[in-house]
Amino acid sequence: MFITLEGIEGSGKTTQVENIVAFLKDKGHDCVVTREPGGTDIGKKIRAILLDPENRGLDPMAELLLYMADRAQHIREKILPSLSQGRMVVCDRFFDATTVYQGFARGLDVKRITRMHDLVFDGLKPDVTLLFDLPAKVGLSRAWNEINSGSRDGSETRFEKEDIAFHDIVRNGYLELTDLEPERFRVIDASKSIEEVREEITKTLSEELEKIK
Amino acid sequence: MFITLEGIEGSGKTTQVENIVAFLKDKGHDCVVTREPGGTDIGKKIRAILLDPENRGLDPMAELLLYMADRAQHIREKILPSLSQGRMVVCDRFFDATTVYQGFARGLDVKRITRMHDLVFDGLKPDVTLLFDLPAKVGLSRAWNEINSGSRDGSETRFEKEDIAFHDIVRNGYLELTDLEPERFRVIDASKSIEEVREEITKTLSEELEKIK
Repeated sequence: MFITLEGIEGSGKTTQVENIVAFLKDKGHDCVVTREPGGTDIGKKIRAILLDPENRGLDPMAELLLYMADRAQHIREKILPSLSQGRMVVCDRFFDATTVYQGFARGLDVKRITRMHDLVFDGLKPDVTLLFDLPAKVGLSRAWNEINSGSRDGSETRFEKEDIAFHDIVRNGYLELTDLEPERFRVIDASKSIEEVREEITKTLSEELEKIK
Repeated sequence: MFITLEGIEGSGKTTQVENIVAFLKDKGHDCVVTREPGGTDIGKKIRAILLDPENRGLDPMAELLLYMADRAQHIREKILPSLSQGRMVVCDRFFDATTVYQGFARGLDVKRITRMHDLVFDGLKPDVTLLFDLPAKVGLSRAWNEINSGSRDGSETRFEKEDIAFHDIVRNGYLELTDLEPERFRVIDASKSIEEVREEITKTLSEELEKIK
């Protein structure tokens, strides 16, 4: 099973990853945890270009293509081999992030992005996408608290520095995607406490595991 | 006018660039000389990933997308602004290189590459493409002589290390493209001496300048 985690900054994806892995292992599944961008060695070099504040002049289409290059490498080198070995893949951000950040938020045509994805990735999709949903204001204030307390790396702040309006567009973009593919998305209320979110995820994943039994 | 130079390693593009610029300036045209990959600051960082021999495991699709990211930045930041200022742009390699290297030589579907280009770049094409044509064996032996004599940078040798058969595929790929778009391509016999090639280019460009008068 290929599971992706999506959501705005401060939505708690990273915090919950180890709970997800612990739950899946407990159910007897071997897991690979990965992320985009930067899930491979070559991808880390692409990620460095994407997140370097010096590259402020990055053209939105160039940005999209860099995310897609990272993804192509990631799919070929890590995701497909892991899935074919019968392992579960848990990926922190995947192509929905590209659709909302480069499309809804940066203004590239969403249909064009979707056509490019279909052309490049032969329609590969996650089996389940957990959307960590919460208002941008709450997420960003969490993210900033984490940076100030040292529990989050503040050097990769190209996105965090955008304003709340930008992140609200991202949030609404994600919610729009869930309308297009309700069978793939499971929306998690990420404004709740860490423990409540953990419980909601456990319940959701139990249901998803039932489906593939 | 947007002029691109294409050809295999050692075909003499770089050697002829200054002759081309001198000729165009003499005719009263302001010129911008550029190249792909690496025609912008961000592009130089992408180029470093593409040409680093350490990244041998680069997936062909990821490679294609990195070239396209470099190109998107290059078009937006340099090519289109220069053209709209009324300057001539002379670019050492452009999308034909991607079609032959990633398509004909690395085995990605050529039609798929063309569809991606149309989708990403809205059909932007050079006005004239000079194809420096010569047998791979001649080109590669020239390139190696230049590396050995110190007149060519040998650190960027990811392509040079491929064998002659690979470069012959590239050469034939280029020739196939000229059949598809005979009105855009001008084939230069690059096996001749530097002086003879220079004369052939001058003649060709004079004809092209006549067309736009």
